[in-house]
Amino acid sequence: MTDFAKTRALFHLPEGVVYLDGNSLGPLPIAATQRVARMLTEEWGELLIRGWNSAGWFVQPRRVGDRIGRLIGAPEGTVVMGDTLSIKVYQALASALELNPTRRIVLSDSGNFPSDLYMAQGLLASFGDRYELRIVEPEEVEGAIDDHVAVLMLTEVDYRTGRLHDMKSLTAKAKAAGALTIWDLAHTAGALPVDVTAADADFAVGCTYKYLNGGPGAPAFIYVAPRHFETARPALSGWMGHAAPFAFDLDYRPGAGIERMRVGTPPVIALTALDVALDAWDGVSMADVRAKSVELIDLFIREVETRCPELELASPRDGTRRGSQVSFCHPEGYAIMQALIARGVVGDFRAPDSIRFGITPLYIGESDIRKAAAILEEIMTKRLWDRPEFRRKALVT
Amino acid sequence: MTDFAKTRALFHLPEGVVYLDGNSLGPLPIAATQRVARMLTEEWGELLIRGWNSAGWFVQPRRVGDRIGRLIGAPEGTVVMGDTLSIKVYQALASALELNPTRRIVLSDSGNFPSDLYMAQGLLASFGDRYELRIVEPEEVEGAIDDHVAVLMLTEVDYRTGRLHDMKSLTAKAKAAGALTIWDLAHTAGALPVDVTAADADFAVGCTYKYLNGGPGAPAFIYVAPRHFETARPALSGWMGHAAPFAFDLDYRPGAGIERMRVGTPPVIALTALDVALDAWDGVSMADVRAKSVELIDLFIREVETRCPELELASPRDGTRRGSQVSFCHPEGYAIMQALIARGVVGDFRAPDSIRFGITPLYIGESDIRKAAAILEEIMTKRLWDRPEFRRKALVT
Repeated sequence: MTDFAKTRALFHLPEGVVYLDGNSLGPLPIAATQRVARMLTEEWGELLIRGWNSAGWFVQPRRVGDRIGRLIGAPEGTVVMGDTLSIKVYQALASALELNPTRRIVLSDSGNFPSDLYMAQGLLASFGDRYELRIVEPEEVEGAIDDHVAVLMLTEVDYRTGRLHDMKSLTAKAKAAGALTIWDLAHTAGALPVDVTAADADFAVGCTYKYLNGGPGAPAFIYVAPRHFETARPALSGWMGHAAPFAFDLDYRPGAGIERMRVGTPPVIALTALDVALDAWDGVSMADVRAKSVELIDLFIREVETRCPELELASPRDGTRRGSQVSFCHPEGYAIMQALIARGVVGDFRAPDSIRFGITPLYIGESDIRKAAAILEEIMTKRLWDRPEFRRKALVT
Repeated sequence: MTDFAKTRALFHLPEGVVYLDGNSLGPLPIAATQRVARMLTEEWGELLIRGWNSAGWFVQPRRVGDRIGRLIGAPEGTVVMGDTLSIKVYQALASALELNPTRRIVLSDSGNFPSDLYMAQGLLASFGDRYELRIVEPEEVEGAIDDHVAVLMLTEVDYRTGRLHDMKSLTAKAKAAGALTIWDLAHTAGALPVDVTAADADFAVGCTYKYLNGGPGAPAFIYVAPRHFETARPALSGWMGHAAPFAFDLDYRPGAGIERMRVGTPPVIALTALDVALDAWDGVSMADVRAKSVELIDLFIREVETRCPELELASPRDGTRRGSQVSFCHPEGYAIMQALIARGVVGDFRAPDSIRFGITPLYIGESDIRKAAAILEEIMTKRLWDRPEFRRKALVT
């Protein structure tokens, strides 16, 4: 049984804050500050350039990738770290399209994270009108998979509502239709059990600053199914993905296996912070995390619906059909969330009208849930959100 | 007059080490450890998601970009940080090709950093045989610019020898021929004066872990000439470059000006370390840095040629025609560099046979140069490099 008191003790949670936004940015692992300081002073400071070999910086993207692989069902040597999720989406899509050269349609849905769609638009626009990005409603995806689709590109958990796609069945259906699949696991990795091998995904990508607590702008990961190792051509073909980066050949030769998905010089400081954050998963059962998450969200839904009838549940009520987050709609959602944050309950707002809460059993428990619901009730019944300062939009919402 | 004793005191230089590899990885700014620790504990730890607004994380890529802009002659609002240099090369090239749609040739040279060529190959291969990457010798570049060239893509300072291209005249010639220019300033920014505005470059890119001392894998920068602000289409079109990232529209609309060159979530921890490193440039005159660099390299060449006649100068002898580094050739270059490193003189080796030394006046002075030359002499005259352990190749050279 996972000891959640022990995992909670690994994180710094500010005094007086109930943090329900770990689905956007996970909290600071307490050990990260010292570990990063040590990397700076003992590795960068003392080893300087020699750190690439003797401190293991060069192999860090693979080593850390393997640690994430264990959380998503990816065998060793199939995941590598680097860049941002948007870049990895582009890389996966560019590769996948070339692996399916006779087809012209990229199928996605309106529940995909916008940046994934933007990256696809950016890539496809480079080819004039050769390709079509077809965006359907989430519930229409299954019916839209046909033998014209080159690539099915989806985010498993809808960032707005937590609605969960059936990754296994959609992947199987895509495969049967001759399409490749790219799964964005941004809201999956560290949130719920997932097995890219069992699901038979072709590519999977994700960020690490949400449920994996890697810090603001932490590097992304990419998984490639071993069957594509020798044929996937990385459009973003940088020197770190070259078969022999330090031969300085003029011609690109892709590295073996997942190595070719590396691009530029890896972000060592950020990877060090992420590496510490991943220590929190040692001894943690993802099944326990999932069970606790469903239980806590069920409790939160009950509490909120009882206390705040004017808020409308925007997430699936069935715990097996949602990720580790829950949203409610209200026309004044933005102001309500600002009022909540002012009272120490930190969630976030997603346009047009939903307030969103990430539920992260690693450091959130039942008392947090009850406290958040009680504060929300007070804000709603006393209309505490109805103030000009809570309507002032910030740059980042 | 720049006070180099003062700048030297800002960096940690390990006891007993003469560090002549700042052209590969600059040393740790002493203030970085505490500043990063403060960012972790006070910003990430306490503010959590609110850091995007209240700690200025969201605007950091532009703010830090402006600091670098001041070192390369780029006006405010024309430089933004993010990703890696390889990614920024791709982004610049993809944009530039679309801005010159009737032409099919990308011209570069064999002195360009291989990753720039690899990224170009990766991009161009996506289009089948539509484009040609023409790689000529550095001295043939000028003659190869004709009215078939879409984009001239060069690194100003040759990573192997320090040989300097004439950026202003090549850019003018390209422009007269109707070609756009992309300048990689990896070995220029922080090394010598450069003025992207006066040179009339279309795009400029660079990394920040060399002469700018941002740390291993520090983020890259991209400059776009304001005349392209409204027309450059970022193929890598991520949400942070969207006109309204938090509207979560399904369609990409490029942000204003340089904002559109942002891609994914910015690497806040790494940008914080870089921000500290840039403090070292306050009150520093790049002309002074340049004069001191030429003087120190001239001294090093004289010392080495006198003491070690078997080493052949691989860099231009004329200080105005090289960057802030110097290389010597020897068939046993690799072993010689390993022997030097074992004696505390840290430079690096570049295949096939050159030993390379970065000369960085911010923290390197005359006594370092004399000491390095004396140790090199001892290694050469006593053949101290002739040991099996110095021939064992490391992953990263």
